[in-house]
Amino acid sequence: MSGSALAQDASADQLRGVAKTIFAPVPTAAEIIKEKGYTPEQIQLGQWLFFEPRLSRSHIISCNTCHSVGTGGADNIPISIGHGWQHGPRNSPTVFNAVFNAAQFWDGRAADLKEQAKGPVQASVEMNNTPDAVETTLRSMPEYVELFGKAFGVESDPVTFDNMARALEAFESTLVTPNARFDQFLAGQPTLDEQELKGLNLFINKGCIACHSGVNVGGQGYFPFGVIKKPGAEILPPNDKGRFTVTNTASDEYVFRAGPLRNIALTAPYFHSGEVWDLEQAVAIMGSSQLGHELDADEVKAITAFLHTLTGEQPQVVYPTLPRSSIDTPKPQQ
Amino acid sequence: MSGSALAQDASADQLRGVAKTIFAPVPTAAEIIKEKGYTPEQIQLGQWLFFEPRLSRSHIISCNTCHSVGTGGADNIPISIGHGWQHGPRNSPTVFNAVFNAAQFWDGRAADLKEQAKGPVQASVEMNNTPDAVETTLRSMPEYVELFGKAFGVESDPVTFDNMARALEAFESTLVTPNARFDQFLAGQPTLDEQELKGLNLFINKGCIACHSGVNVGGQGYFPFGVIKKPGAEILPPNDKGRFTVTNTASDEYVFRAGPLRNIALTAPYFHSGEVWDLEQAVAIMGSSQLGHELDADEVKAITAFLHTLTGEQPQVVYPTLPRSSIDTPKPQQ
Repeated sequence: MSGSALAQDASADQLRGVAKTIFAPVPTAAEIIKEKGYTPEQIQLGQWLFFEPRLSRSHIISCNTCHSVGTGGADNIPISIGHGWQHGPRNSPTVFNAVFNAAQFWDGRAADLKEQAKGPVQASVEMNNTPDAVETTLRSMPEYVELFGKAFGVESDPVTFDNMARALEAFESTLVTPNARFDQFLAGQPTLDEQELKGLNLFINKGCIACHSGVNVGGQGYFPFGVIKKPGAEILPPNDKGRFTVTNTASDEYVFRAGPLRNIALTAPYFHSGEVWDLEQAVAIMGSSQLGHELDADEVKAITAFLHTLTGEQPQVVYPTLPRSSIDTPKPQQ
Repeated sequence: MSGSALAQDASADQLRGVAKTIFAPVPTAAEIIKEKGYTPEQIQLGQWLFFEPRLSRSHIISCNTCHSVGTGGADNIPISIGHGWQHGPRNSPTVFNAVFNAAQFWDGRAADLKEQAKGPVQASVEMNNTPDAVETTLRSMPEYVELFGKAFGVESDPVTFDNMARALEAFESTLVTPNARFDQFLAGQPTLDEQELKGLNLFINKGCIACHSGVNVGGQGYFPFGVIKKPGAEILPPNDKGRFTVTNTASDEYVFRAGPLRNIALTAPYFHSGEVWDLEQAVAIMGSSQLGHELDADEVKAITAFLHTLTGEQPQVVYPTLPRSSIDTPKPQQ
């Protein structure tokens, strides 16, 4: 960070120059679609599936239940509630801009959105279903069979659990939030006020950017929660060892993926335990636990003000009219 | 029904003439809005509230959970699942075209959609919330306070439980499904095939129209389930006495509001108990229990074919981006 000293005293223009080396704007859905080569049929199918409660054993839980497009792509409760009102182990991460993360889940155990999509469908505390049951369900509805065929070519048996995940990845990749005030700032516009510029400056110079950079202002690497000082057990429950459960490596105990901070003002409560509701408190905790620095109240307020500028344009999604069940569709089970 | 004998042998045109005296087409949302005088702000507020999980104690259940705009305005499970995975007593009725019903709920205990909207929010087995908690929640979010003010004029305290219900009524009144093939037929188009015309003819002449007529093909009056022959306990559970619990009148035991049949092909399972998944089976049960007539297989198929023509254009609803919680918003409780 050769630019750090400079940025500290920099004018907005100088700060912008530094910021552009650290962050990048969120592309539009159209740009993502073009880059990834998704077809309209794949996206439409993914949109149906994202809102499809029949992917769950009970027929009442869909992807949107815990990753609601109406509330920042998450569910805004500490830990998600799934089948039978069971509580999941961690706070639901936002689906918005998730395509920009290096890996999915708090512990990065899924390489991409396609792999991620298969998890909650099968998790006993979430949708509690099986790939076989999902395929039987989707094959029972002619409209699904037709759209799977269109989405994935002339395959003789297009309705597969794997193709379900491919379609979900296509749709979820369109759930991006471009044109945040911060992105307008990066593009040269005077959209940040003095307090927000101060916050950006602090965010850079206090070292937050060590873990939170790039398009998603995070979501790229794994870091111990409490690299300097471990937070209390209510925020860092001792029985959730994070990435250790993926790698089985001692140094990965209590290691988590750095949270992506886009739209962070919309997705309280915070951290994998979902125990912190106040964004200012979350910033203060990060200061002490990750930076070993007790941020003063003004610094916390300024950084929080900057984080609010990361709220982008929310996706406008038309609720899909889903295919009706046929007499062969498996019945819900509770 | 002086037209019955005529209709039995009638050509499609003659049948149309009879049908127009019994049924009426579903108006468009624009026509409803004009008639009722709802403002854009009232409808927009209602749309937010319809998808608002923070109306529930847990912050995960919204109106749309049990009345999903993606699945015919209902949840398509036997009986709804609410707070704490509790099971409600009855099958969730569709919200689509509910504005045309004479009263709401299976027992008609709410006079209109506004009164209905207050029920599930407070029901312990549904959203399990209180009017006070709802008002505190909505008042904690400036965007809600602003929109309530715009929707309901210059009232000094516009955020009330009653205004919540008024807004929900406004939005729900727009959830109509015009232009079904049957409505096109009523308007003079040759949209019904021979089998469907036969079904319509049977529907009229077997007496189904005694309970199922008007815009909503039902939803107007109260009738004993089993007027001729009571169905078995799995379909008519003995502990649910229907309208008796509203009127406390012995003659109202096992009396329910005649189901509105618009979009009936989309809203299995059927009856207040939600125990019948096959529309043909439901038709056969109605024949024996209400008409005292064992419909033969061809008759059942024809009537079912006619019922499929009642599926209208489904509302296309943009999922609203909801106001974010403030630090004063009450926390979810489980």
